[in-house]
Amino acid sequence: MNGAESLIRTLVDSDVTVCFANPGTSEMHVVAALDAVPAMRGVLCLFEGVATGAADGYARMAEKPAATLLHLGPGFANGIANLHNARKARVPIVNVIGDHAATHLRYDAPLTSDVGALARTVSHWLGTCREARTVAAEAARAVQAAAGAPGHIASLILGADAAWSPAEGVAPRLPVHGPSPVSDHAVARTVAALRAGWAALLLRGEALRGRGLAAAGRIAAATGARLVCDTFAPRLERGAGRVRVERLPYRPEPAVAFLAGTRTLILVGTQAPVAFFGYPDQPSELTPRGCAPLVLAHPHEDGAAALVAVAEALGATGPAPLNTKSLPERPQAGALDPGTLMRIVARHLPENAIVSDESITGGFQHYAVLDTAAPHDFLSLAGGAIGDGLPVATGAAVACPDRKVVVLQADGSAMYTLQALWTMAREKLDVVTIIYANRAYKVLMDELRIVGASTSGSKAAAMFDLGDPTLDWVRLAHGMGVDAVRAETTDAFEDAVASAMAACGPCLIEAVV
Amino acid sequence: MNGAESLIRTLVDSDVTVCFANPGTSEMHVVAALDAVPAMRGVLCLFEGVATGAADGYARMAEKPAATLLHLGPGFANGIANLHNARKARVPIVNVIGDHAATHLRYDAPLTSDVGALARTVSHWLGTCREARTVAAEAARAVQAAAGAPGHIASLILGADAAWSPAEGVAPRLPVHGPSPVSDHAVARTVAALRAGWAALLLRGEALRGRGLAAAGRIAAATGARLVCDTFAPRLERGAGRVRVERLPYRPEPAVAFLAGTRTLILVGTQAPVAFFGYPDQPSELTPRGCAPLVLAHPHEDGAAALVAVAEALGATGPAPLNTKSLPERPQAGALDPGTLMRIVARHLPENAIVSDESITGGFQHYAVLDTAAPHDFLSLAGGAIGDGLPVATGAAVACPDRKVVVLQADGSAMYTLQALWTMAREKLDVVTIIYANRAYKVLMDELRIVGASTSGSKAAAMFDLGDPTLDWVRLAHGMGVDAVRAETTDAFEDAVASAMAACGPCLIEAVV
Repeated sequence: MNGAESLIRTLVDSDVTVCFANPGTSEMHVVAALDAVPAMRGVLCLFEGVATGAADGYARMAEKPAATLLHLGPGFANGIANLHNARKARVPIVNVIGDHAATHLRYDAPLTSDVGALARTVSHWLGTCREARTVAAEAARAVQAAAGAPGHIASLILGADAAWSPAEGVAPRLPVHGPSPVSDHAVARTVAALRAGWAALLLRGEALRGRGLAAAGRIAAATGARLVCDTFAPRLERGAGRVRVERLPYRPEPAVAFLAGTRTLILVGTQAPVAFFGYPDQPSELTPRGCAPLVLAHPHEDGAAALVAVAEALGATGPAPLNTKSLPERPQAGALDPGTLMRIVARHLPENAIVSDESITGGFQHYAVLDTAAPHDFLSLAGGAIGDGLPVATGAAVACPDRKVVVLQADGSAMYTLQALWTMAREKLDVVTIIYANRAYKVLMDELRIVGASTSGSKAAAMFDLGDPTLDWVRLAHGMGVDAVRAETTDAFEDAVASAMAACGPCLIEAVV
Repeated sequence: MNGAESLIRTLVDSDVTVCFANPGTSEMHVVAALDAVPAMRGVLCLFEGVATGAADGYARMAEKPAATLLHLGPGFANGIANLHNARKARVPIVNVIGDHAATHLRYDAPLTSDVGALARTVSHWLGTCREARTVAAEAARAVQAAAGAPGHIASLILGADAAWSPAEGVAPRLPVHGPSPVSDHAVARTVAALRAGWAALLLRGEALRGRGLAAAGRIAAATGARLVCDTFAPRLERGAGRVRVERLPYRPEPAVAFLAGTRTLILVGTQAPVAFFGYPDQPSELTPRGCAPLVLAHPHEDGAAALVAVAEALGATGPAPLNTKSLPERPQAGALDPGTLMRIVARHLPENAIVSDESITGGFQHYAVLDTAAPHDFLSLAGGAIGDGLPVATGAAVACPDRKVVVLQADGSAMYTLQALWTMAREKLDVVTIIYANRAYKVLMDELRIVGASTSGSKAAAMFDLGDPTLDWVRLAHGMGVDAVRAETTDAFEDAVASAMAACGPCLIEAVV
């Protein structure tokens, strides 16, 4: 057994069974080891940002890490933007980054770069294997580091010679540190704050799912507290039969207005809210003046159990009011706009679907529409680095082959990682991609105004214009083996969505909005 | 005038007049400043790797830096792979990286990351502007640092508040350090080595163009020395009427065999040759045993003037033998292969064209065919990070609007930065892209064998297979507004190339090989 095989066998023994890969020469022995270890699934991605974004989506749904396989510093760099998102989503990922053989590293070969410096920028844990005998133990440690609550990015730099030299064997799975329980004191302070009234719970992580969300619903019913989630929560259980959670608005002024009147903002698995960007004369901190944030659960703590404890302490045992299914009417015939688009999606969203949302401006205003659709998981752009909608959907579909995945995808953002469509076709993933084709960086047109920049001509405007030439998403999808159709009217979109939801396998709908 | 406008005006005054941009919120004032400064051309790219690769191609041809405009850490990260290539090409680039306002940086906002740590991995010079009044001076210094011989990557982190606050004005252009003259001693040693015989000149940079290349030709004619360039030289003047330079083979065994018998390897603007990768039981250093490398000119030194001095000292004033134009016959009807492909390109390559080569396995074997085509500039993948063929062509076409640009592009590599096609269409660039559609990571199929990895099944093979589904480059190009056609036979390819060369504007030919 060589180092590469000891790596793959150790990962499998630690329950890492999917590898999103974009390998090069220095990873050839790892690729060869895939054949020796049937339990590891290799998923080829044609760009590294697809691999890392898919690992993010996989981890959000599978609740365990996938591996990525990346080629040297430049290959890893291509994956950094979506690792940034995964880091902010607090999901586990194990990156395997191939590096030159130790004997070759001393030379300034063309592809030599400081892999460690790049990896450190997004990794919580970084290991380096220069000898085959250390690979298994380091791989087991990488998984342990990644999987510890609340989910971490672990990167393992693997020298090519460490991969090809004889290794000693496989390392056993190491224990993983789950979330810590919160203190009785935190529970008691939270109970007191809720009893005092005018409280809001800001939720993230486990608090937005299952027993955590149910307990939050009981607390809200008993105390009148508001339930709020971050603008871009990594994963949220929504739809009919689930507790309704309000979404914090994206921009600072509406966010501050939204929270006005809150006396205590109780943080569960998240931090005090901060604006995406600083703007002239606008606040960065979104917590209203005079409102004290109170931490019930830090991200590494068990927010779901904490909510259950708070509900019990409050005696909030009664049933929480839940969203009821209330599908919109079929919209009247006419042109499509983001509102009708979302209503049509809500009409057809299948039970237990997974929604990967990177609709940006197209989706913000119509977010609430899906609250009364069929129950589903809703995944957002956790770190704000655009280009994760398609890759996250790819990984979620690999994790959950029996569930329909729907991508709500802005056209500008889609261009960063459009290569994901090819992997969807290759793996026959059941993903319906809906492109909001507004043919602009619409969010930036708004931002230009909000930051107070004044323009006098056409050059600045051209920086937001994706309509010259128009991106043809039907042809782009066909070019990567994905069925596609364009819809410019409500009727055409209704028909396209209905048949996409009824079918199985990847398809794309370009919705001209 | 705000900081953003003082930045753009200073760049223009320092002769930086093109900005390849993919901006976000934190760069909105810089975008607005484009309207205020007519002399700065903004070129929108839909992915950051296109912007940085285009700046590389622009600098190789314009011999001065372009600016890039990138959004925060994740946006910069997307540009790193092609900055790695530009760094290895030793070309000047000025990156402007927007960052959060200083008042906002203290918060852990979703898009906060360590921009400086990322920028340091590929930058020779790194400046940070947190106040508007420092922007102009720092911008002038960034251009000075970038443009100093032999070309550097300068990165300027620009806080959003430094861009939007009032600035003092424009900074004057700073003097740029050109290449240093080589010592008389280096010239004398080189002359002695050449007189001793069995010498080879390994050339890069200015030594591969104009008077440098002509002098090298005279030296070779007078002494019998071989003229060799790196496998991936950033820029080389080739074709009829130019001095012929042999290319160092890509893999170590043939490279060592190629240099066998050389007693002195004279380095002009490059380093002693090193294999791309380390392989078991193969050398990393390609200089033959017993052959001493001798530095005539370091990369920061004036290699062209050094060659002229050597030729004079040798009395090598006679005319060098030059390539004569000898176009291949029209190939017989039949299926296309990489050899016939290159011969057909040679038949139709227009005078003074620019060739951006990322053909990888498709091109290696047939490289010499272009030696007797019409004279042209030949640009290669200088740093080995795949995905620069299309962006480099984009930038070269912006720099040289009167010259035809031809991209020889492997299909697998093209997928990393295919968004460049859209910018070619938007800017109506005169670029003919030829895709070698072998529908495989062919180079890796070869590498797997050479590194000695043994495979037993289909999972490893699937990691090299781009044929399931087949990438349809005609549709991908059409999807981004570029005319395209597929050619599967020599006749179809001959016709497609002939009409593409006769036309003006971007087009793509998918050559099935």
